This record gives sequence, structure tokens and C-alpha cells, in this order.
Amino acid sequence: MAVQIRKLDSTHDGFTQQLHALLAFEAATDDAIETAVSKILADVKQRGDAAVLEYTNRFDRVSAGSMAAFDLSQEELQAALDALPPAQREALQTAAERVRAFHERQKQELNGFSYTEPDGTVLGQRVTPLDRVGIYVPGGKAAYPSSVLMNAIPAQVAGVKDIVMVVPTPDGVKNQMVLAAAAIAGVTRVITIGGAQAVAALAYGTETIPAVDKIVGPGNAYVAAAKRRVFGTVGIDMIAGPSEILVLCDGTTDPDWVAMDLFSQAEHDELAQAILLCPDADYIAQVEASIHKLLPTMPRHETITTSLSDRGALIKVRDMEEACAIANDIAAEHLEISAEHPQQWADRIRHAGAMFLGQFSSEALGDYCCGPNHVLPTSRTARFSSPLGVYDFQKRSSILHVSEAGAQTLGKVAAELAYGEGLQAHARSAELRLLSQPKPRP
Amino acid sequence: MAVQIRKLDSTHDGFTQQLHALLAFEAATDDAIETAVSKILADVKQRGDAAVLEYTNRFDRVSAGSMAAFDLSQEELQAALDALPPAQREALQTAAERVRAFHERQKQELNGFSYTEPDGTVLGQRVTPLDRVGIYVPGGKAAYPSSVLMNAIPAQVAGVKDIVMVVPTPDGVKNQMVLAAAAIAGVTRVITIGGAQAVAALAYGTETIPAVDKIVGPGNAYVAAAKRRVFGTVGIDMIAGPSEILVLCDGTTDPDWVAMDLFSQAEHDELAQAILLCPDADYIAQVEASIHKLLPTMPRHETITTSLSDRGALIKVRDMEEACAIANDIAAEHLEISAEHPQQWADRIRHAGAMFLGQFSSEALGDYCCGPNHVLPTSRTARFSSPLGVYDFQKRSSILHVSEAGAQTLGKVAAELAYGEGLQAHARSAELRLLSQPKPRP
Repeated sequence: MAVQIRKLDSTHDGFTQQLHALLAFEAATDDAIETAVSKILADVKQRGDAAVLEYTNRFDRVSAGSMAAFDLSQEELQAALDALPPAQREALQTAAERVRAFHERQKQELNGFSYTEPDGTVLGQRVTPLDRVGIYVPGGKAAYPSSVLMNAIPAQVAGVKDIVMVVPTPDGVKNQMVLAAAAIAGVTRVITIGGAQAVAALAYGTETIPAVDKIVGPGNAYVAAAKRRVFGTVGIDMIAGPSEILVLCDGTTDPDWVAMDLFSQAEHDELAQAILLCPDADYIAQVEASIHKLLPTMPRHETITTSLSDRGALIKVRDMEEACAIANDIAAEHLEISAEHPQQWADRIRHAGAMFLGQFSSEALGDYCCGPNHVLPTSRTARFSSPLGVYDFQKRSSILHVSEAGAQTLGKVAAELAYGEGLQAHARSAELRLLSQPKPRP
Repeated sequence: MAVQIRKLDSTHDGFTQQLHALLAFEAATDDAIETAVSKILADVKQRGDAAVLEYTNRFDRVSAGSMAAFDLSQEELQAALDALPPAQREALQTAAERVRAFHERQKQELNGFSYTEPDGTVLGQRVTPLDRVGIYVPGGKAAYPSSVLMNAIPAQVAGVKDIVMVVPTPDGVKNQMVLAAAAIAGVTRVITIGGAQAVAALAYGTETIPAVDKIVGPGNAYVAAAKRRVFGTVGIDMIAGPSEILVLCDGTTDPDWVAMDLFSQAEHDELAQAILLCPDADYIAQVEASIHKLLPTMPRHETITTSLSDRGALIKVRDMEEACAIANDIAAEHLEISAEHPQQWADRIRHAGAMFLGQFSSEALGDYCCGPNHVLPTSRTARFSSPLGVYDFQKRSSILHVSEAGAQTLGKVAAELAYGEGLQAHARSAELRLLSQPKPRP
């Protein structure tokens, strides 16, 4: 199958409609999955370990006699790390160090505050870590050690004491690089369970698994449905859509580089989206030629071909200013500004999960080891949400310490408004603290 | 009906189970509501204004000829403010000023950051406001101008340019204090629509209402169901459960004050929860006596009686240390530490939406005018979530500007890990930036 990548032109009639049709993505909700997940959640909530054991043995084709069989020791994690080929181990360690360094900066930014007013009233905000979080790591084919680093390290930097990782091991097969990543990232417990049953165990707790406060990490449709359903009982991170890359190029980058950057997103899965915006028609043709030249060399060429054909686009724009405006509409997960003097264009971008500036900043570097998180808002949610970060493992509490003098002035204001809203107990609660007691109003 | 408030003792067998049973709250999902909301959302998404107009005329018993009839002018908002009784207007203005001052502090804390590595690679994080938000304000009986301030001011402080408020006006009745609050809080547009149809209009946009990026604010079961369903298309704030107050008292506060503080939460609705923790049995008896004495004086005594009887408790604890441990388990929306030297106990609290320290800090002051937000995490979600704040109207983008030198070191690390994960296009994308090109691996 030859790749057929769509070409659009922003000056043509109906361009905006074409673009929006291309971007539209709605995760199908599958009734069969919803029903199955609902049943599993209720069952684990009620029967605890017994249910988790049964589902895990059945779905992962293992035959554990008890939950204890699913726990991996810290020694086993360390052994997996020690046994990696040195180049791989060093790469994992370098990536972890850099991810940690970036997230330490995030932590420094959020310290809370407190201030004292002239009458002695103290107001402030305190920032504290979550107690315990669960990290879901997919098993089987799509096992990504980099995800372990990206999810666990921000939690550890935030100060979360218990980081419980669940990872299914279908047919009992453990991914050694994933276990090694857990050892590096400071995961405190690894349990080889997965699916909706693992999400339920983390959310509700069982005899052997303590309930967590938040569950993060990617998973299949069952895991996503389960996370949606337990939201409220625990916190969850975003429910990620297909991955996306948007490349803004002024035509100065080697077209092979841009083609490969588009591939690097398209190879994730057939629903992934890779789009180029460029004002130079000749350059777009060069990128297209590079796509045709390089695609046959890629081991995952089938996935790339389907993704580029179904959801990709090469878009000719009037100029880089217009490219920036379109980029704000798209609000991409990954935005490469592959241009000379990229900062001038970056200054015009309001919405993007992560911005990669200049021709050397390929998205792949950010996916693995630059330091910023690779868990980013997809499907235009960068309009209102942020990369996964230390702040996702912290929460704030307001502090109000009203002085006796403060209660005199604030009490009158509060009472006035409370009576206005018909909440008389609120009003009286404020008025009782006044030195000269007013009579209650009706 | 006399109030029958439950008394528990932490030293008794089964206390923890009793406490957890008392705290348990699951919002019932009503199939009829879900079905109705699903239909309304789909209808507004497809038919836009025509559907919003029909639903609004029907549900709010009005007879508007076009959507334009639902728009309130800034002049009408200002007129509502000007027409308020002076004491009420001044109270509203004072509250708004204080809320703004507190939230300005929040804004100062989050500025983003950027740092340059020795090889010239720049990494950072940028913080930007959302473009446009929708604020849902309930109409009818439970119309709370304070909610307008608490939802709109953080958005305005964050730098959100368009703040669109929707508020239903059943039978065409407008709450003047709510309109006045909109004038003060910097709301940019007020539309008198409500229900699931208003949520749909804000989420999807119509011919006359632009789609927003996030919807915040309280509403009834239809509004809550609609918000849950549009989440992902837009951001939403939390789905609030019933309001709660937890009072930790060392027995030194006037028992009438504590009784009234419990009432001030119980009067919200019959599902609200008010709990006292105290190590002093005699003092608990005094608070109980105050409850019986003061309850008949309260206009909303029926609601208070039901709430205290069904969901309230006076709990005798061993000591204040134990009270703090129990408070961390409860993770209350509002936590009053009504004690001498309250800071020593506050230091032990890890989970609470807002902490009110000392006997003068009644929750009512925080509800209206201290400055911190009154939109707080309920139902134990303070374990993982935060008060509504400026940060809810901002989002972060990662910045990665890799230098040519940086691409040489980072490229090798990224390629190693990408090959390890079987993502060869990622690896090649990194390797293409290396000056000495390695051969692709399989």
C-alpha cells in the first residue's frame, strides 16, 4: 500500500472545515467494554483480592495461587537493571537524571504562600504531596520503560511516599526494561496485575493492596473506561487520545528530518496524527519526496502508511504568521517549530502541550530524555490542560487564621452577604464573633 | 422533629467502620437524568441556537423569540449593582476586592521558568491563560452571588479574556444580586440560559455563543451530568458533592460558636455533613446543649435538623493528636481548628480543602470575604485535589530548544531507548541530527 498523504491549502475555500474534519476525533465508547468494566469494578470492590486473582489468572493466562505471587521484590527490579546491556542501562539512567532535574524545577515553583494583614489576620496556601499514587504501565507488546520514568519521577519529586506500579504480565512474560525503569524511578511497589481489575484494586483497595489517592498512566480501552469510572473516588490523569505532531516549518530544515519527525508520531498507531504547516510549496514537495523515499526503510511502515494516509496532512499556508494562528486552533500535543529564529514564532503560540524549537529539537528527544514530561494533552485539550508534572502529585489547602480584630470587620461583610443569600446560620456564625452583638435578622 | 445527632467515641470497637459508613457518599446516577441530558447535548450540538431556544423556553417557562433576548447588557449588570442597598453593595465590593487580592498572590506564584544547559540547550515551562471560559451560575431559589465572585475573579486574575456566564432565569425572574456580582467580577458576557442546554452551548458553541475552553461552577443534577459528559471537549472543574465541615475543638471555644458553625454547613442542604471532633466529653455535652438551644431560632431549622440527624456526628477522641489523624482520614472540605495555638495542630494536617485556624476563623468568613476561594474539594477529594484557583484558568506548555551540541548527546540516548522500545522512526529522527550518522538498526 502506497502512502497517500492529504495536501491542503489555507487559501482554498472550505479550508477551515477541512482542517476541523481532519482534527475531529471522538473516542468511541464501546458498550461491551463499559458493561464488562462496570462488572469488574463492582466485583473487585466487593470481593477484593479473590476477584483480582481470578481476573488476572484468566485474562493474563497465568495461574497464581495467591496475590503474593504478583508482588515483585525490589531485588528483582534491581536485578533487571543490573542485567541490561550497559548502553541501555546508561541511557535509561541519563534519561531519568534529566527528567528528575527538570521536574525539580517544577517543584521549586510551587511553594505555597502566606501573608499577614494589618489586623493580624493570616491568609495563605499550603502545598502538600499526595500520600499514595498508582501508576498503570501497559504490559505485552507496547511496553514503554520511558513511560515508567515519566509517570513515576514527578510523583517521587513531589514527595509522594508510596508509588505503587501495576503492570500486567500476559503469559507471565515480564519486560525487563520496564522493571529496570521502576528500579531507577523510585517505585515503591510493583504488582504484576493489569486491566480494569488493577484499576479497581488501586481505587478501592483490597486486603493486600492499599487504596491510592490518584491513578496515572496509559492503558487500553478497558483501563481508560475503568479510570473514567473511578474518577472522584480517586484522582486520575487525563484520558489520552491518539498522539499528534504538528510541524511548523519555514523551509530551512533538511526535508528528510521533517519527514522522519512526522513518521516518529505516525509509527505510534494508526490513529496518530502528523501534520506539516509550511508556506513554501516547493519545500512541501521535497518533504513529500522524502516521505516516499524513507518510508520503505521503516520497520513500522504499515502503521506509518495508514496513519499518514488516514489522518496526516501537508498544509500550504500563506506565511508563518498564519501557520501560528492555525497552530493555535489545532492546539497540538507536540509542536515543532522547525525554523530559523524559532522564538519569534513561539511567542505567537498560545496553545500546545510541548513546543520543540529549532531544527535540532526533534520530538523524539523530548519523548525520551530532554527532561520535560512526555505525557501531554492530546485532541486539542492543550487549550485547557497541561503536561503531566509534579503539580499533578501535589494539592493545595487554603489557610485562614482570622484575628479577633479581623473577625469584627469581616464578620459584618460576611453577615450582610449571607443574609442576602438567605443563609442565616452563616450570618449568625459570623455575628457571634462580633464584640457588639447585633440581633439576628429574619 | 427533634434533632438526634449521632455520638461516637474513637475508643469504642468498630469506630473506624462507623466513621467510614458515616462519610460514605456516592452520588446516585439517575438513568432518567442521564438519558435526558444525553439527548439535550446531542440536540444542541446538532441544531445549535434553535435547540437552546426551545429548551430554555420550555424548561424556564419563558417565551423568547430569539437568542438575543437572553443576552444581558453590561448596562443592565451595572444598573443592578447601582440599585443594591448600599450595605449590600459595599459588602459585595469588599468581598470582591479581598478575593481578588488573594488570587493575585496565587498568580504571582506561577510564572513558568526556563534554564539553559552548558551546551546551549534551553528547557522551560510557559504558563498561559485559557482563552475563554464559561461560568455556570444556578438560578431560582439557590442563587448565590458569592459563587459568581469565587468563580469569575480567579479567571479574570488568570488573564482569561472572555468570561461567559450563564444563569437561568426561571419564569423570567432575575436575581439582582447575582447580576451585580457579575458586574463587579469582570464577567464579559451574561446569557440567561441554564441546564444541560447551557452546558452544551458553552461546550460545542452555537451560532451566537462561542465554544469555551472550560466550564466551571455549581449546578443541579442535570448540569453535573452534562458537565461530566462534555469533559474532554472542554475542561471542567470538580463535580461537587454535598458540603462538609469538620470542627476540631480543644474545648476552649464558646460552645454556641461551634454549634452555629455546624449549623452553617448543615443549613446548605439535607445531605450536608457537620462533624465535631473533641477530646473533652463535657464540652461535647455543652455543644449538644447549644445545638438544642439555638436550633429553634434558625429559619432553616428543618434542613439543619435533617442534615445533623442523618449525616452529623459529635465524636469524642482520645486527644487532639488523634483528632488530627482522624481529620486526615476524613480529608474535609472545611476544617476548623477551633483551639488555642491552632498552628501546632494545623502542622499535622495533610488533607483539607481549607483550614480555619483559631476560634475567630468561622467558616462563614471564608465562604464570603476572607479572600481564599469557597469552591473546595468535597467527599474526601482533598486527598488529591485543590481549591478552585487561578491555576485552574491557566495551563502550562513545555519548551524544548535543543542546541546542535545538545542534539549530539541527547540523540544517542534517545535512539538507544527508542530502539529498546521498538520505535525505529523515533530513533532515526534523533540519529538524523547526529553529525556522524550511525546506520539504522533493525
